This record gives sequence, structure tokens and C-alpha cells, in this order.
Amino acid sequence: MMKEVHGGNIYKYDHKVYDFSANLNPLGMPQEVKQAVIDNIDGYESYPDPFHRELTAAISGFHKVEEERICCGNGAADLIFRIPLAFRPKQALVVSPTFAEYQQALLTAGSEVKHYFLKEENGFVCDEGILDSIDAGLDMMFICNPNNPTGIGVERALMLNIAEKCRRCGVILVIDECFMEFMEEEPKYSVMDCICRLENVIILKAFTKIYAMAGLRLGYCVCGDPSHGEKIRETLQPWAVSTAASKAGCAALKLEGFIEKTKVYVGENREFLRNGLQSLGYRVYDTKANYIFFRSDRELIKPMEAFDIVVRSCANYITLDEHFYRIAVRTREENEYFLRCLAEVTGRQPERKEEAYG
Amino acid sequence: MMKEVHGGNIYKYDHKVYDFSANLNPLGMPQEVKQAVIDNIDGYESYPDPFHRELTAAISGFHKVEEERICCGNGAADLIFRIPLAFRPKQALVVSPTFAEYQQALLTAGSEVKHYFLKEENGFVCDEGILDSIDAGLDMMFICNPNNPTGIGVERALMLNIAEKCRRCGVILVIDECFMEFMEEEPKYSVMDCICRLENVIILKAFTKIYAMAGLRLGYCVCGDPSHGEKIRETLQPWAVSTAASKAGCAALKLEGFIEKTKVYVGENREFLRNGLQSLGYRVYDTKANYIFFRSDRELIKPMEAFDIVVRSCANYITLDEHFYRIAVRTREENEYFLRCLAEVTGRQPERKEEAYG
Repeated sequence: MMKEVHGGNIYKYDHKVYDFSANLNPLGMPQEVKQAVIDNIDGYESYPDPFHRELTAAISGFHKVEEERICCGNGAADLIFRIPLAFRPKQALVVSPTFAEYQQALLTAGSEVKHYFLKEENGFVCDEGILDSIDAGLDMMFICNPNNPTGIGVERALMLNIAEKCRRCGVILVIDECFMEFMEEEPKYSVMDCICRLENVIILKAFTKIYAMAGLRLGYCVCGDPSHGEKIRETLQPWAVSTAASKAGCAALKLEGFIEKTKVYVGENREFLRNGLQSLGYRVYDTKANYIFFRSDRELIKPMEAFDIVVRSCANYITLDEHFYRIAVRTREENEYFLRCLAEVTGRQPERKEEAYG
Repeated sequence: MMKEVHGGNIYKYDHKVYDFSANLNPLGMPQEVKQAVIDNIDGYESYPDPFHRELTAAISGFHKVEEERICCGNGAADLIFRIPLAFRPKQALVVSPTFAEYQQALLTAGSEVKHYFLKEENGFVCDEGILDSIDAGLDMMFICNPNNPTGIGVERALMLNIAEKCRRCGVILVIDECFMEFMEEEPKYSVMDCICRLENVIILKAFTKIYAMAGLRLGYCVCGDPSHGEKIRETLQPWAVSTAASKAGCAALKLEGFIEKTKVYVGENREFLRNGLQSLGYRVYDTKANYIFFRSDRELIKPMEAFDIVVRSCANYITLDEHFYRIAVRTREENEYFLRCLAEVTGRQPERKEEAYG
């Protein structure tokens, strides 16, 4: 039985849909990235470079970290599986509810998985209480920042405390920063700038989301300890990254101003969508990312599908249920259409019509 | 430390090389396949279809097997790792010397790995003696047909006996038929046409080699037992196959006459290269594939590199040593150049100059 458990699964429809279920950059894949894929077409006859030399050098320059700290993968999801397989943690902690693949990957590597549960009554915020859950019995910990599906960030100061507690307890901390570029206050949340002194930390990154190239598959991780990089690179197949993805990634890292432009566009539209949802009476959590997590007493999947809109039910996230939904921040036009349709589905009128949507 | 252990690693050179180290179709990637990658560029913004519906339907039609028997992967190498992770065999048998990834994948899944060694004195031929090595203590067996690096095939009748012995002993038999299309007498070797009644068999296939699209990464397997297909699909990440690879694969399966044309071209050039090597005094084994395995007392890597020719040393294959080499069958022009350079390197004259090369 094939199960549809993730967002972005638009292929079951025989027509174009408004995909609010996948968290991709609403500005789309930059033209320069598409052109790089096309321009290098003849190179796809050969095997990819197993060491991704060109791409690794580009990432190294972008983050100003040494090349040996970097491992590239077939999307961040590939690395999520490779990291536990490389280290074989006996016991691991996952900050939940979160992206289901961390647990899946840990189980595949034979780990016992514990959860630190973020609570609805605290607005799914991760606070200092988490420090008490980290002990020497653990070998690995996964945390997503900003979290998926909530979009809520852990501030840098707390994340550094978590990393330090993990270090003292001998725990490898995997921080998934795949949505970090969408946050306007990125420096307040990211620990990438000090990865070189965080020897027990691995930061996961993706090209998928920020460059809207999910169909090409490209992710990477940056390791505080270069020997971790070597271990991860040696796990699973040597040609995980296609040459097409690699060339796309190199072109993406040469772009100027694209991330800044995205932050502004997503920021404006996040507020627009959030206000629209709130004015329709929905409880919206404090997202800082390119997606919005909200609660609805009414089932929304089917009625929104009638308007060709796909939303992500969060029913299959641990501790969440069918009342929670996640939607991506899309273009202004799509967001307006979404709110108009949602108003119709719920039979509610926005409280402040003139502000909520035009 | 980055180790260069496979063929096809052309990226360490800063100039174009004659790559005889990777076993790709010398006719190159068909234009229709390249065009499909380009034509679908806008679709790479979205996540790939985790169920590869379009591609799976195309493979199903091509092999005339039900869709549920098929799993697609990020190159056959992805599936080589996924299969042991899906079944967790306690003890596995590998017919060696062969592609190193089988053992690597089995070890990653925690298996104990035994080897059935093909012997040089038998010309590395796999005969009925192998049946005695299959017993109920095994859970999985890997065999490559035609074998890599030797190019020697196991005939269908013997392979069916191996499959039957495996079935009686409760062993899952993984047959890697990734180079099968290059064999002129494919029906004499392949068991694909009866996979539906081989419930304990999984056949591995790749687009990589026959369509020369190694840089795009696409492989699949066909399972005798559809429930095996489900198990493998559920192992590791759901988006292993990029949309670019999937579109390329669909275009490849629509080609008419390409495989037949390849068989003829490779067949002629294999004989040309084989005769050339033999006339230079090399011992050449009985390959039926698109690569040639031979013995040389003299080190060839460095001297051939001086002519911008890359050959594959087989020193890192189990039981082989630095005296064994593998070269791909390339275009006539490249093959002629190869033989001219080899004659110069070895200081030998071909025995029958007029036949060996022009």
C-alpha cells in the first residue's frame, strides 16, 4: 500500500493544483539555476564526481567553512538517513512534533528513539526545559530550527546551551536549519557562523526549499568535527548527488540578493496570510518560517481540494491530530485565492475585511 | 581522506580524458533523453513524485511486469544499499570478485558477509559448484550477471538452479542485471522474463549504463514477490529519484531500436578491442559485456594517463591484485587510440598488425 504522508505530492491530481502543502520558495527556481541544468546537459553522461569537488568548494566559500566539514547528499533527506547510519546511536532524542524522517532514520539505524514533546499549551515553543532531557544516556539528538511543521524558531542563545549540554553528555546534536534562510532574523537563530567550534554539532541544509529545486534533490551538512564529515561521506553510495543537482547548486550559490529578496517577500506574505487566517478566527502559531501552522476544528483537506488547493494535514505528526494544518506561504495572488476559498469553505467572514485580503 | 576506488572519476583531471574506466554506452546519452531533461525543467521546482507513478508505469510496460514489483532508486547503487537495509539479512553470500558495493551495503545493514570465490584458474567462470555454497544458514545472496569486472555471464539455466536452491534454503537472491542489455545473447542469460514466478529473486537494473546517463542517477529493481517491493520502497527517503532522472528514464524507455543498435556496436568493438589486446600478448577473459577484463604484468595506470587515457585498476577487488585491469568498450576511434597507446606503453608490436587495429 502506497501511503501519502508528506506534502508536495501533487502527482495524484490530473490537473494543476495550488500546492500549499510543500514549503518551497514562492519565487520559484531562479532562471540561472534552470539554465545551469540545461547548459551542462552533456556532462550527465559521465558518473557524478563522488567527492562533489566543485559544489563543495562553492558551499565552503558560501559559509566560510573548510571543505572537509561538508557532506553533500541527495536532498537533506538523504543525509538525515546517512547520519544515524554513520554513527549508530544507541539512544536518540527527537524534539517533537517535527519532521517524521528523523525518527524513521534513527529506527533504520537501530536506535531507540525518545521524544521531548513541545506542548500545545506553550504554543509549541521550545524553552530551557529541554536542557533537563539531555543526559549521558543519549548518543544523538535531532532538532529542527525553525521547526517543521510549526515554523517556530529556537533562539541562538538557547541552541548554544543545548549544544553545550550535548557536548558535555557526549551527544551528537543534529540541527536541521533547512528553513533558516526564510527567517528575517536569521542571525538571531542560526549557529552556522560558529559551527567550527561546535565539535559535536552537525547542521543540515537544503537547496530544495530556498531555491525551489525539490525535484533535483540537493542537500548538505556542515560538521563541527571534520572527522564526522568523513564518516558521513563514507556511508551509503558514493554517487548520491547527481551532476544536474550539483551544477544547479553551484549556480544557486552564485546568485546575488536572491535570499534577501526571498526574506522580504516571504515575510510580507506570511503576515498577510497570518492576518487573513486570524481574521477568519483561526488560531495561528508563532511561525517565523515560510509556512504557517494553524488549528482548525473543521476538516479542510477535502473542501479545499474542491478549489484545487492542497494543504498539509498534520494528523500524522506525533502528538498532533487532524485539527492541525500547515500551509506554505505562496505568492500574493495564490495567498489571496487561498483566503477567499477558505472563507467560503468555513462560511466565515473575515473580521476586518479590508485588511485581511483585497 | 578521500579515496578514489571506482571507475569514472574524471573530475581529478583538469582536461578532457579518454575515460575507459567507466562502463557506459559508447553511443552516449540519446538526444531524446537529453531533450526530456530540458523540456521538463519547470517541473523540477516541485518535489518528485515519491511513488514515481509515470516512471513505474513505463518500466512496467517495458518489462511486462506488474507495477507493485518495481522499486525505483537513485541509481542502482541506491537500491544495493536499500535492499539489505529492508531485509536485514544475518548472513549473506557474495559471488566474488565483484562490484564492491554489495559487501559494503550488507555490512551497513549489519550482515555477516561470506564469499564464493571465482577462481582465476577457471577463468573466473561461475559453475555449478556454487550450488554447494548455498545453505539454510544464508538469508541473502548477491550475484552480478554479467559479472563486474569480468564481463562473464552466468547462463540462465544455472541461474534458475541457483534461484531454486536459494528458494529452498529461504535465501533472497539479488541478481544484478545492470549490464545485461549489452549482451548480444541476452535471452540466454537474463531471468527477467520469468521474474513473476521467482518469488525469492530481486533483479537490479540501471539506466546509468545502457543509456549513458550516469550523472542523472536512475536505477530500479523488479521483485519476484510484490511484498518485497513494498518493503524496499519504504526503506530510506521517499524522494530518492529526482524528477529529472524520472523524465529521462521515461524518454529512454520510449526509444526504438537503441538497445539493439548498442548490442551490435558494442559487440563489434568488444571483439576489436579484445583482438587488439590479445595480439599485444595480453590474457583477456571471456567477457560478453561492454567492458574487457585482462591481465597485465606491467603497471598501466600511470603510463596510460600520460596519453590522457583512464583505465580501471582492479587491485581493490577482493582476490584480485594490481595485475588486473578493466576497460570499457568505447567508440571505434577511441578504441583504436587506446590500442595504439597501449602498444607504445608496452613496447610490443601487435602480432597481426593488419587485423588488430588500423
